[in-house]
Amino acid sequence: MTRNVVVIGGVALGTKAACRLKRLSPETHVVLLDRDDKISYGGCGIPYYVSGDVAEAEALQSTAFHMVRDAEFFRKIKGFTVHTRTEATRIDRVNKVVHAVNGDGETLTFPYDTLVIGTGSRPRNLNIPGQDLGGIYSVASLHDAIRIKSTISAGEVHKAVIVGGGFIGLEMAEAFSDMWGIETTVVELADQIMPGQVSQPLARMAMKSMEEKDVAFRLGERVLRFEGDGRVERVVTDKETLDADLVILAVGIVANAEIAREAGLDVGPTSGIVVNRKMETSDPDIYAGGDCAEVRHLVSGQPFYLPLGSMANRQGRIIANNIAGGKTEIEDPAGSFVVKLFDKSLSGVGLTVDSARKAGFDALSVRMCQMDRAHFYPEKDFLFLELVVERETRRILGVQGFGPYGDFLVGRINTVAAIMKYKPVVHDLSTLEYAYSPPFSAAMDIMNALGNIADNVLDGRLNPLSDDGFQALWDQDSDSLFFLDCREAADAEELLAKYPGRWHNIPQGELKQRIAEVPRDKEIVLVCNSGMRSYEAQLNLREMGIDNTRSVEGGMKMLATWGADI
Amino acid sequence: MTRNVVVIGGVALGTKAACRLKRLSPETHVVLLDRDDKISYGGCGIPYYVSGDVAEAEALQSTAFHMVRDAEFFRKIKGFTVHTRTEATRIDRVNKVVHAVNGDGETLTFPYDTLVIGTGSRPRNLNIPGQDLGGIYSVASLHDAIRIKSTISAGEVHKAVIVGGGFIGLEMAEAFSDMWGIETTVVELADQIMPGQVSQPLARMAMKSMEEKDVAFRLGERVLRFEGDGRVERVVTDKETLDADLVILAVGIVANAEIAREAGLDVGPTSGIVVNRKMETSDPDIYAGGDCAEVRHLVSGQPFYLPLGSMANRQGRIIANNIAGGKTEIEDPAGSFVVKLFDKSLSGVGLTVDSARKAGFDALSVRMCQMDRAHFYPEKDFLFLELVVERETRRILGVQGFGPYGDFLVGRINTVAAIMKYKPVVHDLSTLEYAYSPPFSAAMDIMNALGNIADNVLDGRLNPLSDDGFQALWDQDSDSLFFLDCREAADAEELLAKYPGRWHNIPQGELKQRIAEVPRDKEIVLVCNSGMRSYEAQLNLREMGIDNTRSVEGGMKMLATWGADI
Repeated sequence: MTRNVVVIGGVALGTKAACRLKRLSPETHVVLLDRDDKISYGGCGIPYYVSGDVAEAEALQSTAFHMVRDAEFFRKIKGFTVHTRTEATRIDRVNKVVHAVNGDGETLTFPYDTLVIGTGSRPRNLNIPGQDLGGIYSVASLHDAIRIKSTISAGEVHKAVIVGGGFIGLEMAEAFSDMWGIETTVVELADQIMPGQVSQPLARMAMKSMEEKDVAFRLGERVLRFEGDGRVERVVTDKETLDADLVILAVGIVANAEIAREAGLDVGPTSGIVVNRKMETSDPDIYAGGDCAEVRHLVSGQPFYLPLGSMANRQGRIIANNIAGGKTEIEDPAGSFVVKLFDKSLSGVGLTVDSARKAGFDALSVRMCQMDRAHFYPEKDFLFLELVVERETRRILGVQGFGPYGDFLVGRINTVAAIMKYKPVVHDLSTLEYAYSPPFSAAMDIMNALGNIADNVLDGRLNPLSDDGFQALWDQDSDSLFFLDCREAADAEELLAKYPGRWHNIPQGELKQRIAEVPRDKEIVLVCNSGMRSYEAQLNLREMGIDNTRSVEGGMKMLATWGADI
Repeated sequence: MTRNVVVIGGVALGTKAACRLKRLSPETHVVLLDRDDKISYGGCGIPYYVSGDVAEAEALQSTAFHMVRDAEFFRKIKGFTVHTRTEATRIDRVNKVVHAVNGDGETLTFPYDTLVIGTGSRPRNLNIPGQDLGGIYSVASLHDAIRIKSTISAGEVHKAVIVGGGFIGLEMAEAFSDMWGIETTVVELADQIMPGQVSQPLARMAMKSMEEKDVAFRLGERVLRFEGDGRVERVVTDKETLDADLVILAVGIVANAEIAREAGLDVGPTSGIVVNRKMETSDPDIYAGGDCAEVRHLVSGQPFYLPLGSMANRQGRIIANNIAGGKTEIEDPAGSFVVKLFDKSLSGVGLTVDSARKAGFDALSVRMCQMDRAHFYPEKDFLFLELVVERETRRILGVQGFGPYGDFLVGRINTVAAIMKYKPVVHDLSTLEYAYSPPFSAAMDIMNALGNIADNVLDGRLNPLSDDGFQALWDQDSDSLFFLDCREAADAEELLAKYPGRWHNIPQGELKQRIAEVPRDKEIVLVCNSGMRSYEAQLNLREMGIDNTRSVEGGMKMLATWGADI
C-alpha cells in the first residue's frame, strides 16, 4: 500500500489527482507543492476575466458554490496538505525524494512512494528583441490576467497587437475588441488563423466574421522586434510596423518538463513528458499528466500535445485510480476543440485534411452548408462543415465546422468525437441517430447529410468543387469553362446582369428541356444556393451524357461566407 | 435491373426513397401515390405552426429555399411521377400490382417490380362517447393543423383540454398557453407525463416547470367521455368534469399497416410492418419504412415503434440504396428524443430504469445536478441527468435529462446515442472526450462527471438517495433518522430554524473535529448543495466508522427543482 504521495503542481491535474486519491484511499498521506501562491484556478477562463465577463479573478479559483480553492480549502475539505510558494527543484529517483525550495528560500525535502508530476506549461518564448518591454504579456497565469486587466481598466490601452492566431490569441482579440473597444490586430505567422486546427477555407470564414467585428488580421507575417521607451510602442514585422500600447504573446505553449527530463524520465518530441495510457512515466512510481505530458493522437497514433483543462481532469482521475490500486486507462484524445469568436464558433475533432495527409492518410475532405435545424423553424442558422475521410477505407479522420456561437455546432462535433475510438466509417455517420424535434434539428440531421455527401463523393456520383477551387477557376476567366447557375431565374438575375456572357442560368428543373444550351466541350461549373440542386443538376447532366461538371460545395451561401470575389 | 418502382405514401419516407432512387438510378421508373392532396410536409412542425412560430402552413411543405414540394416539384426537379388524392387499396403480390382509387372514384392499377410502403400512421382512437363532437382534434395532418389554427385565431378558444401527456400533447400545450394564452389542461392516464420516456422524478421536474407557465396537469386520470351540443363543452374523466371549448387527442399513434397485413406481410406486436435492417418486409420485393414500420430497439432488442421524421429520412435512403442494388443496413435506433417545453427541454436515449427492468436488465440509475458549463462563466444553467446502467456489466442502458431549452442537453444526449451501438460501459462515459472551452462546457464535463458518479455508486463508495427517496424518509419523521446538512453554516440556517431538532448542520470540512455530534445508532441522511460535499461527507464518516449514511443526489438544488415538501 502506498503511504506517501507527493504531487508537484496544483492547478488542474495535481489537485484533481490528490482529491480523488483522498476519496479512494483516505489513509494515504498526500502532499501537494506549487511554486505559485495561487492554485487550482481555471486558466482557460482568463480571456473571460480580461473581457469582464468574469468580474473577479477569484471566481476562477472558486467552486461552483463560491468557496475559494486555496491551501486551507484542500486541507479542510479534501484532507491533504498543500505547500504553496514551494518549487520542486529536483527529483531524486534513487532515494525517492523531491527536493524543493520555498518562498523564504528554505530547502525542503518530500519523500514519496509515488510521485505525480503536474507541472503544467508556459508560454512559448519568441526570443526577439524588445520582448521584455512593459506592456507585453502572455496569458499564462492568474497574475498575468490581473496585470492585463488592470492595465486595460486604467484606460491606458488604445491599440493592441496580439501575436498568434490560435485559441488564446483569438479569445483575447474578442475580449479586447468586444468589451473594451480596443483597436486590435492579430499577427499570425501562418497563412491562416487556427493553423492545424481547421482548413484554410474554414479559417477564412472565421477570420472574416471577426473582421466584421473590427478585429484586424495580418497573415503570413513574422514579428521581428518590439520597440518602445520602457513600454512597448511599436511591433515591427517583416512587412510593416504596427503601433501598439499593449501586446499579447500567444504563440503557443511549452510543457514544463525540465524537472522530469533532469530526473531521467522520457520526454517526447512535443516537449511533453512521455506517459502510457495508465499515465505512468518511464518510471512506474512516477505519474504525469496535464499540460506537462504528451499523449498520443487517437487518429494519427502520433505523439500529441493537448494542453486542456478537460484532459487534465480526466487524467487526474485515472492517476488517482491507479495509485489506489486500480488499473484504469485513459482514452487517446482525438483533439476536440471549440472556440467562441464573438457570435460565431469554430469547432472540430480529429485531423484536418492537411494534417491527415501529413500523417500518411490518402485523405480527402467534403464540405457542406446547411441549416442547423428544421428550415421552417424561426430560429435557425447556417452551419459550414468539413468532413475528412480516408479514401480507400471510408474511415472518418476528422470533422471541423464554423457556425453560430452556441451549443449546436460543438454538440455535433462531440458526437463524432464520441465515436472516434471505434474507427467509424462514412456509413456510421450517415446512419447516426440524433434526437429529432424541429426546435433542435432537421429531420435529416446535418451530420447524417454530411455523411451522405461524403458517400456521394466517394461513390463518384458527386464531383465537388470547393470555394477556393471555384475562385481559382473563376479567376482563370477561361473560355473552356461554363459557369451554370441552377437556381430559379430570379435568384440568378443579379449575377447574370453583372457578368453577361460569363454567367449562365438554367434552373435545374428545366435542364432536360434546355440541354441544347449546355456546351459539351467545356467544363461546367454548377452553382445553386446550397449545393443540393447543383448536385441534382450534375446527375441530370450525366444522364444526358455530360460528365465534365463540378458542383460548388455549399453553393452561393458558402461562397458568400467564404468571401468569394465575384 | 428494377424497372418499375411504386411508392405508396408521400410524406417523409416515400419521397426520400423516391428522390434518392432517382439520383442513384435515373433510368428507373418511379411512381408515388398518396391519398392526400398535400404531401411531403414536416408533420412534426405542426405544433409550431399552431403556436404561430411558423406563420404559414405552406412553410412546412417547402424546401429551405422556399419551393413548395408538390407533385409538380417532384416531377420537374426530382424526375418522378406523383399521384395525389390516390389511395392504394390493395397489393396483389402474385401479379405485383397495386390497386388504387383516385379522387374521382376511378380505379387505377400500378404494376411494380419493387414496392415501397410508406403509409405512415394515424392518431390512436379513444373509442369513447362524444369524440365526434366539433372542436375535438388530433394532430395528424396539415389539414388538422389548419383547422386547429383557424379555430384558435377566430378567438373561439378559451379553455383547452389536451388528452395525453406525451410529446405531441406537451408541444400543443406550450403552443396554446405560450402564444395564445389559452387556459390549458393536460390529462394523462399514467401517473407521470412522458411515461416510458423518462423516470417519474425527471417527469415531475418537467411538469412543474410547465405548471409555472400556467399549464395545468391531471395525472392518473382517465377520460370517459366528451359532452356538448354539437361542439365539445366538457371533458368528463373518472375524477372530474373539465370545461373545454377545444380538445386535442394526443394519446399515441398507430401504424397504417392494414394494406400490408391484408397482403399477407408480417406485422409486428407494435402494429408496425416488420422489416429487417435492409428495410425489406417479409416479401423481399416490398420495402417498408417510416411511421408504418416497426424496428428493433438497439438496447432491449425488442420490437420498437419510433414514428419520427428523422428515422423515415434515414430509412428512405437505405431503401433507395438497396433497390438500386446496394446492400446497406440501417442501425437499430436507441430511441433518442428531445422535446421543448417553454424555456426548458427534456431529452433522452435508450431505456429508463423502469423500462430496463421490464426488458430484463438488473438496472439501477444514478442522478446528478450540475452546471452545464464552467461555473465562472456568466451564462450557465443547471442540468439534471439520470444515467441507467446494468449493475453487473456496468453497461450504459440509457440516459435522460431535464434542463434549459437549447442545444446543450440534447447535444450531450446525442453523444451517448452515438456510442450506444458499441455497448458502452460506465468507463467509456467517464473518459469520453468533449471539446472544452468555458463558454461551452465545464473542465470536468457534466457527462464525464455523470459516469464518475455511476462508477462511485457501482463501486459502493457512494450510497445515494433520490429526491423521492428523500421525501419518503423525511415524511417518516422517524427518530432513527438523522438529517445532516453538510453545507457551510450560512447555507443551512434557514432549514435549521424551520426544523429545530430535526435538521442538523455540520459543514463537511468540520466533520472530523465534530464527529461526536454524529449519532452512531441512526441512519444519516447527508445533504449539501449539489451532492458533491455530501459524498465527501459520506467518505469522511465511513473513514470514522459510520457507514449507515445516504447522500442526497443533486443536493438541495435537485430537491428544490423536483419540488420536495420541506
